[in-house]
Amino acid sequence: MTGLRRSWVESANNATTDFPLNNLPYGVFRHDGAPYRCGVGIGDWILDLTALEEAGVLRLTGDPVFDRPRWNALMAQDPKVWAELRNWLLHALSEVEGDPDGLAPYLHPMAGAQMALPFDVSGFTDFFASHDHALNAVHIRRGPEAEVPGNWSHIPIGYNGRASTVRVSGTPVVRPCGQILPDGAARPVFGPEPWLDFELELGAVVGMANPPGQAVDMATADRMIFGHVLINDWSARSIQFWESQPLGPFLGKSFATTISPWIVTAAALAPARAEGPRIEPPVLDYLAAPGPVHYDIDLFADIELATGERMQVTRTRYQNMHFSLTHQLCHHASNGTEMRVGDLLGSGTVSGPDRDNRGCMLELSWGGAEPLVFPSGATRTYLEDGDSVILSGHAQCDGFRIGFGTCEARVVPAADLRHSD
Amino acid sequence: MTGLRRSWVESANNATTDFPLNNLPYGVFRHDGAPYRCGVGIGDWILDLTALEEAGVLRLTGDPVFDRPRWNALMAQDPKVWAELRNWLLHALSEVEGDPDGLAPYLHPMAGAQMALPFDVSGFTDFFASHDHALNAVHIRRGPEAEVPGNWSHIPIGYNGRASTVRVSGTPVVRPCGQILPDGAARPVFGPEPWLDFELELGAVVGMANPPGQAVDMATADRMIFGHVLINDWSARSIQFWESQPLGPFLGKSFATTISPWIVTAAALAPARAEGPRIEPPVLDYLAAPGPVHYDIDLFADIELATGERMQVTRTRYQNMHFSLTHQLCHHASNGTEMRVGDLLGSGTVSGPDRDNRGCMLELSWGGAEPLVFPSGATRTYLEDGDSVILSGHAQCDGFRIGFGTCEARVVPAADLRHSD
Repeated sequence: MTGLRRSWVESANNATTDFPLNNLPYGVFRHDGAPYRCGVGIGDWILDLTALEEAGVLRLTGDPVFDRPRWNALMAQDPKVWAELRNWLLHALSEVEGDPDGLAPYLHPMAGAQMALPFDVSGFTDFFASHDHALNAVHIRRGPEAEVPGNWSHIPIGYNGRASTVRVSGTPVVRPCGQILPDGAARPVFGPEPWLDFELELGAVVGMANPPGQAVDMATADRMIFGHVLINDWSARSIQFWESQPLGPFLGKSFATTISPWIVTAAALAPARAEGPRIEPPVLDYLAAPGPVHYDIDLFADIELATGERMQVTRTRYQNMHFSLTHQLCHHASNGTEMRVGDLLGSGTVSGPDRDNRGCMLELSWGGAEPLVFPSGATRTYLEDGDSVILSGHAQCDGFRIGFGTCEARVVPAADLRHSD
Repeated sequence: MTGLRRSWVESANNATTDFPLNNLPYGVFRHDGAPYRCGVGIGDWILDLTALEEAGVLRLTGDPVFDRPRWNALMAQDPKVWAELRNWLLHALSEVEGDPDGLAPYLHPMAGAQMALPFDVSGFTDFFASHDHALNAVHIRRGPEAEVPGNWSHIPIGYNGRASTVRVSGTPVVRPCGQILPDGAARPVFGPEPWLDFELELGAVVGMANPPGQAVDMATADRMIFGHVLINDWSARSIQFWESQPLGPFLGKSFATTISPWIVTAAALAPARAEGPRIEPPVLDYLAAPGPVHYDIDLFADIELATGERMQVTRTRYQNMHFSLTHQLCHHASNGTEMRVGDLLGSGTVSGPDRDNRGCMLELSWGGAEPLVFPSGATRTYLEDGDSVILSGHAQCDGFRIGFGTCEARVVPAADLRHSD
């Protein structure tokens, strides 16, 4: 079946909504301080699955899976149950076969809903897979003759991130303090990060574990991905540059990672499957893809100043990535590392060949040398307190979109180093 | 009170036992396939706290804390409850005031006990704080003129590790496969790691969270540490060397981390508090210690070959570390990162100035140039399949030891890249 699937939820039958019936993204929501519940986005509405399960209208397995406001219990089920839920929703919400009278009482407006983290993050791993981003970064840091490291085209380069600070869209980001080496100084100082940056990434949510010690092939890695979210991998560049040798980024990244509130399933994104760029030299055998493992997804970053002025600063494509999240997951498990339900993988900053494709301020302002200029004349090299970063994205399919909603957060001033006693 | 505390458990009254009444380490054990339970090591015995709680003999809070075979629920209590438990045990097991008739039925022999992971690992972060290790590593990799990076003396350098692969002592370690660049080759190959290494470390187990976004001072960081374990931070050197630029170690470390089965509490280690080395230049203010934050702990590594031949290869001291685990925890939270109950921090390889102080094979064999020779004539540059690495350690106090038991694991051959379908 191709084209827009029509729903009895009118606002879902719109060629530019992020949430047509074809999508059915999974989130955790509440209104007015009520308990959080699991829900599905449909047009301008959220269908309350926790209530439907409690009422016995929806029953997937013997045990409830929506009694906790997180999607981990559903993800931990066999993928047949993932498919069963999607099929039930496609049917129940469809214009022709659906059940508006039965389900309408379980719809809540998306407007005004408070969203929570859709899943407990077991582990967070971030990668570095855009060639344009890698090349820009080395040129900015080491000059125009510098080259991307020799391992980069062979290895889906990644590092372990910090799971405890993954926050849902809307959570303010406190400007971190840290050790910084001022220009020309012999000794570092401790203070607020001056070069606060965002990074526009796509994330994969792992829904299936591998047995401890067992690698997985590319086809299995692909099936282990339950869905995708947008990620803002906030970066404190001064802290990062001073700390990163020799063991990589640590506190320059660990203070905050923002994700969009909706898990867009791999099943929903299937029509957007696409080939990635041609990889030369070819990948080693264990990373050879059995078919297309990229998606054709357009990604955007806007910055909104405290004045309310808003400008799109990035428009880029996930399809540009040298390695896909499937490559990255396969590589992650290739040494036998146990992947767990709820693991989050970040693609790495998604940049592209043109200036407006750059996925972070480091690139957009070319290391601070070329400030972004807003229509009002306001300029930015890095982010200032009060600025919001708003990521969005969608796969444009034939007559409909599979969208992610937004992943946004406002920067608030650095906290004093508060003492607990 | 100083000196050995005498217990009615005879085997605890021994100047060289790891587990005198002064220690009381916390673990998770079972015998003969029975369910795992929380227990306390005392001499050659384990006191079953899960059974004592079930029987109503021990009651710390309204809710049970030992009904799951993990120590996280106890750690999540207020430190007053930590002290209450320790005081109850010191009393109940003491020679003079104790209750042998009441408690003897809850003692199980340590011999033959199967131990499980003592706590669920929320996050794992590994550091790099031995100056001798750092200097040896740069000399081996870059020659005798190379220097430790300029940031090293200021920053407790660390990186996020992989929590899902932290295993308890006794779990075999599968030699990992991965991308390796053979000497002189233009392209990497994928295969079993030839340079499998151990790293001898001390670990800290975090028992108290900080509020999200809030840094903590050194005194608070110190109180947040519930206890300590030994860590073998297994390292696949070829994989690590090929992958580590620019984002640090990843699959070269993530395949396995082994910890000792007993959490030795900070309270038990108090008599071994000690000053660390004099730090020049002085640390930045946020890392200034209010008092001694090191411990005087002797650490050992033995290798046992498949033939049964065993040799001590390392004897070193935690007190040598430039930064302590308290510095590392304070630094970790200094950007507002939320620390969680069950976080595990590794000190980094503990080496020392002399050859027999070196805490890993990379250093012991000087990058493979100087093999270790066993009495039988067997040699090792790195670890071979069938080799066991056995870490041990204790603080030698006045008339007693606070010991860790052993942290051991055998290397088993690389798994084939098994496909799940």
